[in-house]
Amino acid sequence: MNTLIWNQLTAAEQAAALTRPVQTVAEQTRQTVAALIAEVRAGGDAALRAITQRFDGVAPESFEVSEAEFEAAENAVSAELRQALVEAIARIRIFHQAGMAQPYTVQTAPGVTCGKVIRPIARVGLYVPAGSAPLPSTAMMLGVPAQLAGCGQVVLCTPPRKDGTADPAVLVAARLTGVQRVFKLGGAQAIAAMAYGTEQVPACDKLFGPGNSFVTEAKQQVAQSGAAAIDMPAGPSEVLVIADAGANAAFVAADLLSQAEHGPDSQVLLLSDSDALIAAVAIEVEKQVAVLSRSEIARKALAASRLIRVDSLDQAFAISNRYAPEHLILALREPESWLEQVQAAGSVFLGDYTPEALGDYCSGTNHVLPTAGAARAYSGVSVASFQNQISVQSASAEGMAAIGPCALTLARAEGLGAHANAVALRLGVSP
Amino acid sequence: MNTLIWNQLTAAEQAAALTRPVQTVAEQTRQTVAALIAEVRAGGDAALRAITQRFDGVAPESFEVSEAEFEAAENAVSAELRQALVEAIARIRIFHQAGMAQPYTVQTAPGVTCGKVIRPIARVGLYVPAGSAPLPSTAMMLGVPAQLAGCGQVVLCTPPRKDGTADPAVLVAARLTGVQRVFKLGGAQAIAAMAYGTEQVPACDKLFGPGNSFVTEAKQQVAQSGAAAIDMPAGPSEVLVIADAGANAAFVAADLLSQAEHGPDSQVLLLSDSDALIAAVAIEVEKQVAVLSRSEIARKALAASRLIRVDSLDQAFAISNRYAPEHLILALREPESWLEQVQAAGSVFLGDYTPEALGDYCSGTNHVLPTAGAARAYSGVSVASFQNQISVQSASAEGMAAIGPCALTLARAEGLGAHANAVALRLGVSP
Repeated sequence: MNTLIWNQLTAAEQAAALTRPVQTVAEQTRQTVAALIAEVRAGGDAALRAITQRFDGVAPESFEVSEAEFEAAENAVSAELRQALVEAIARIRIFHQAGMAQPYTVQTAPGVTCGKVIRPIARVGLYVPAGSAPLPSTAMMLGVPAQLAGCGQVVLCTPPRKDGTADPAVLVAARLTGVQRVFKLGGAQAIAAMAYGTEQVPACDKLFGPGNSFVTEAKQQVAQSGAAAIDMPAGPSEVLVIADAGANAAFVAADLLSQAEHGPDSQVLLLSDSDALIAAVAIEVEKQVAVLSRSEIARKALAASRLIRVDSLDQAFAISNRYAPEHLILALREPESWLEQVQAAGSVFLGDYTPEALGDYCSGTNHVLPTAGAARAYSGVSVASFQNQISVQSASAEGMAAIGPCALTLARAEGLGAHANAVALRLGVSP
Repeated sequence: MNTLIWNQLTAAEQAAALTRPVQTVAEQTRQTVAALIAEVRAGGDAALRAITQRFDGVAPESFEVSEAEFEAAENAVSAELRQALVEAIARIRIFHQAGMAQPYTVQTAPGVTCGKVIRPIARVGLYVPAGSAPLPSTAMMLGVPAQLAGCGQVVLCTPPRKDGTADPAVLVAARLTGVQRVFKLGGAQAIAAMAYGTEQVPACDKLFGPGNSFVTEAKQQVAQSGAAAIDMPAGPSEVLVIADAGANAAFVAADLLSQAEHGPDSQVLLLSDSDALIAAVAIEVEKQVAVLSRSEIARKALAASRLIRVDSLDQAFAISNRYAPEHLILALREPESWLEQVQAAGSVFLGDYTPEALGDYCSGTNHVLPTAGAARAYSGVSVASFQNQISVQSASAEGMAAIGPCALTLARAEGLGAHANAVALRLGVSP
């Protein structure tokens, strides 16, 4: 890992230090994904079968997970794992439910009531990756808010394994969160199927979930074409840790590594005002990475990662807000007192005993979060991501009398005669 | 206008009846916009000047509206118009403030607290069109929620007029809502400037507002590239009216026309279970359109519009939810009792005295709304559109003891050893 001293860097070097591993979508990826989407739109299930054979090496007659497969999954999952899923889901539900938006009405003038009603998005599609590791945790993170929102149609796609089955833990998590139908489909083809619908796969209004660069590009393309909305742009995972001299170097190193193991393009940054802590973390990282199961992946990610010595914690927060990390760990003595300084981040972890891994699995917060600096303007998945908020207004004749003249003046100023007329007719005046 | 009887249509004819005027972005538009964005990125202000000269016929030395211009605008706007802006802004503020999300925390396990904090998006850019008519109302609709959110940098672009000045009412509305800087820039070049920044125009994290097909395409392209987030995909405006036999045909006709006058590609639909009402509305539309200032535009829009006789109001709501209109007017006897049936729409107007024009200007709700069926999965602009919601979690050692084992089990199941290690270290167990 590179150690840098922030104040000794030029502006250009500072910018370079915060540059993420290259994310530009290769023109090749763009074209491949466009071709796959076109293939699925034109060929439906037959195309899905051919593509799945090509990429996953299996070609199931039916993509949909059957009742028998769900039962087999229940048997394949250990009691301990099932219990962990149940527990985690309960906490995710508590947190998400507490934050649900409420309908409201307010009188804005005598006889004029305005409000919002909240409705579930009718048809949603969830994507759960299973590349280097299947992610039942993602099924929980998407399934729980969809269920709380009350979406009428909830489908989930996850890639088939070599033997044509789906990961049992993903299936159990899906069932526990009320997902209705699961399809063994992965990649851009799964996104295309949920956006446009095929004979087997129903079309969805909005698609959710992380994925590799093909899945991400496919989501962007279907959103761009207006076929389906998406939760947010996704990219390689990342963490930024702000640690003071009192932080536990072994804990900090473990947190950096638990991000680095996600993928070779993951990025981890440490900001600290303590030379001693930075040196200790560097040693701990080397020690811990050596014995990791995914140490090769982690080492690749570490190459693009940085330990940065800052002048002060204030400077650290300024840098963090500029970077807008997906995950932000505050390994500080009084982390709550620093929270006010956080302006842009996906999810924040306070103190020595709140590693990112807790939020990834079971603290209750969502782990589908904005990456690549998108946290400057996007928030993580919540129940609201699965809802429409619809404005409603109601004016009585008295209300029209109260605010109609204002509307009339503005309509005239904008030269919109028919708008003026619609108001004037009700007021019984000339437009 | 075409009158159709829903139950006599085939499924294909029903689908055709709900098809919006073509929205496919021409490859030509896509390329033109991409070239304009590239020109602004490469050439900065000089490019903006050349492009503005080309499209708007003026080339201001400084795009930014000066203090003298703001003062001149104040003098140019009538006292009546200024008062209408002040009044409308006050109601928009009441409605938007009442709906603001609140931070919250909840304990999800002993020693584990999760919550959300809410932060303004730091840098936002507002776009106010001024094509066939300048829209001070849009400046209000974007400026008020940006101000309530507390965004640190709020800039606004609006096209220059032939004489190089900006519309005075837009400037007054911008000032009244706390917009800090206004630039006389329109079209794709304005979007590019706010997304990437130039010498004069500061870069923004998120862009808001409606616009023509070039503006819309430019917003899509900068969002796709990750340069800036956008509020929502925009398209031609539209209204769907559901009216019963008791509705006032003149009012309904006026509402249909106030949508139709927006542009030739606007769409208006009437659904009614009453033949008599439909016939009366058709006559009223002809009568009213003849004397409109923008009757030519309205007539073009009417060509793509439809009066549809439904079997029942229940059927009308099913059709409306399928169409997902931007504006939905319920010209019904007991509109509140039907509200429950509305599943997808941008903004709903209840009863005979709530024309869409009230919501366009001054009921208090926002008029920047999802079009083209996007209301199935997008909501209109609100204060939340200008905010980040950031998850925060905090576990004590006790909290780690309570939920760490759950995280450990899930990390192991996903094969993520470093995640397991980060938890195990704190628990003092082996990963």
